[in-house]
This record gives sequence, structure tokens and C-alpha cells, in this order.
Amino acid sequence: MAAVILHGYFRSSTSFRVRATLNIKKITYQQKTYPLLEAAHQSEAYLALNPQGLVPSLQWSDGQVITQSLAIMEFLEEIAPTPSLLPETPAARAYVRSLTQIIASDIHPVNNLRILQHLESAYGQDKDALKQWFQRWAICGFEAFEARLDADALAGQFCYGEQISFADIALTGQYINNQRFDVDMSGFPRLSAIAEHCLTLQPIIAALPQTQPDAF
Amino acid sequence: MAAVILHGYFRSSTSFRVRATLNIKKITYQQKTYPLLEAAHQSEAYLALNPQGLVPSLQWSDGQVITQSLAIMEFLEEIAPTPSLLPETPAARAYVRSLTQIIASDIHPVNNLRILQHLESAYGQDKDALKQWFQRWAICGFEAFEARLDADALAGQFCYGEQISFADIALTGQYINNQRFDVDMSGFPRLSAIAEHCLTLQPIIAALPQTQPDAF
Repeated sequence: MAAVILHGYFRSSTSFRVRATLNIKKITYQQKTYPLLEAAHQSEAYLALNPQGLVPSLQWSDGQVITQSLAIMEFLEEIAPTPSLLPETPAARAYVRSLTQIIASDIHPVNNLRILQHLESAYGQDKDALKQWFQRWAICGFEAFEARLDADALAGQFCYGEQISFADIALTGQYINNQRFDVDMSGFPRLSAIAEHCLTLQPIIAALPQTQPDAF
Repeated sequence: MAAVILHGYFRSSTSFRVRATLNIKKITYQQKTYPLLEAAHQSEAYLALNPQGLVPSLQWSDGQVITQSLAIMEFLEEIAPTPSLLPETPAARAYVRSLTQIIASDIHPVNNLRILQHLESAYGQDKDALKQWFQRWAICGFEAFEARLDADALAGQFCYGEQISFADIALTGQYINNQRFDVDMSGFPRLSAIAEHCLTLQPIIAALPQTQPDAF
């Protein structure tokens, strides 16, 4: 069996999600980096691997390439179920997946690099305006996320009780991005506490942008 | 056990995804509609159900409310596994989920009503400009989707062989949205053929916007 290779980028929060999942599940992997600002993910070599030209992609030990961070995380959960990143019952699993989607569907895609670049090039938006755009959708999603944790009262050290899950990984990745864009976190005490707790855990620390070989 | 209630809106493609899944799995449900243009999904009554104020939400027969269309679909797949909307092996399941995410993460959130409304109100974009925005991201995602089907050669009548899956449901919902925004589909023969085939199937027809009680 060949090595598992993660094709990603240190600053990509979707790559972070996969690194954290691999680390928690103690799966050894190599990394190949694609500097997004140099459009390395649009190179012919990468497009041959993933025609969508987005990171991350996971090249599994049998050669299969899996794309889309949440699909990769579900794959890893199925193929390496211990420790589990989803609760046991279908209802609880749905709950964790729904929290994860607040980040993965409602915040991240709207604030992705390609959207910001388009707002800049086609709409003439400057850095401040782009920051406002980012903050708007991040805060909108975090308000919803915090409200759900308040209403459902299922959170503990993590979003769902005392076990780390997909939701915590997605949250922590977005939390790091929010810091880069100066998002005011004062309205989100629960989310901040959970993310800060995650940031003390070894598998999360090892997945952080600044601890990656391609960080600068 | 109380009735299963889908809280949604006829034109919402994420509500379509859940209706199609329920229909394929032959789960009987009632519908409650929230006219999005009148901000009914922001009413106090709906926010009590789903603090995020987005449709759809599924109120299961035990009273639990599940939000986020993909989380609902995974829940239904776990609780009512036959007929299955995911293949059997982890690798194939990952493949179907990755195609689904092209629609659910890369196209739909960027073109969602709230984004278009914000581009209109804050950026002064007119109807033509909003249509161009929609077309841009829809075409970008469909190019990636079509390229993946070409490269992987796993499609048949459906995105993955001869069995309908999450990917086909997400694709068909987006296909319908694309028609509303005059997206040129001439570059996507595979996706068009799959979506058109889905549109001949009874559970899909029963999930279409125009066949819902709240359609106008």
C-alpha cells in the first residue's frame, strides 16, 4: 500500500478539517501543498487528480482520490471508526452534521477565496469591503450556531457533550479564519470556549495552519 | 407517534432535496410552508423551531427537529435505509457525497436568496447582474461536476451507475434552479441527461416545486 497523501494548503480551513480528522484517527499521511494565491490548484497536474481544482483532495493508500472535505471526513469515519467523530444514534448524528453544515454550507463557501477575489476584480471591492463581507456571513452563521447551542443545551466541552465531533473541527477551522478577518467574537461565548478548548488538544494543534510544513 | 412534518418552501431547492428523499423512501409527511419572500422563515414561531431561520427543517415523528438538508438526508438514510440513496462501499459513498457537495457547498450557498438580496441592497446590483452572478457560480460548479463524471466514467442513468443517489437529487434541484436563471446547459450533456431522466421519475415529480401545495 502506498502512503496516504493529503493534497491541500496550510491556510485552507477545509484542509484543516481533514488534517484534524486524520490526526484524531491517528492515520499517518504525507502532505502535498498547492499555494492557492499562485493558483497551483489550477495546475494541469492537480486538475488531473481533481478536475474541480479545489483543495483538499485525499489520495488514499489504494490510489483512490477523494475530494470535498466533508465527504473525506465521512469516508474516514466509515473506514476508521475509532475514535468516532459522530455520536451513536441517528438523531444525534444528524444534530452534529447539522451544526457542521452551518459552517460548511452557510459560512465557508460564501467567504471562500474565489468569491472574495471575484468581488475584488469584478465589483471593485477593496480590502475593507471584503473584510465586511466576510464578517457579515461569519457573524450571521455564528449567531445561528450559538443560538442552536443555547436552545438545545447539548453542549459540554464540545458542541455535543464531551466528545469531539465533526462540528468542533469545522467550528475550530472557521474560528481561526475569523481571527484573520477580525471577526468580533464577543457575542459568541459558547463557540469561543469550545474552539479555545479544541485549540489545546494535540491533534488539533498538529493540524493548525502555522504548524504545517508549507506555512509562511 | 405524531406525523412527520417538513417545514419548507416550494421553490427552495434544499426543501426539494428533502421532499425527494422522503418520497423515494416512501415516508409519509405533511408540509408547512414559509414564504421566503415574506420572510416567514424569520418569524418567531419558526425561529423557535430552528433558531437559524433557514428552511428546510424536518420535524420527526418523535418531535425532534432536524435542520440542514444534507443532515436530514443522512438521517433518513440511517433510519430508513431501503431503498438506499448511497452505494455500499465507503469509497463509493465518498464519491457520491463528494458530487453532492459540489452542489451543496460550491454552488447553492453562493447563489442563495439571502446572498442575492444582499448584492441587490448593499451593492446596488440589478436583476441582470444578479443573474450573471448566479450563472457564474452555477456554471463553474457544473463544469467541475461534468468533468468529474467524464474523468471517472462511473455514471450511467444516474451520477453513480444505475442507482439514484444523493448526488442525483442535489443535481436535479440545482438543474431546476438553473432553468429559472437561464443558465446555458449546452456544455453539460451528461448532467442534463441525468437530470432529465430524474425528472421522469414519480418520486422526483412529486417533489418538484410546481407540484407542491404552496406553489404559485
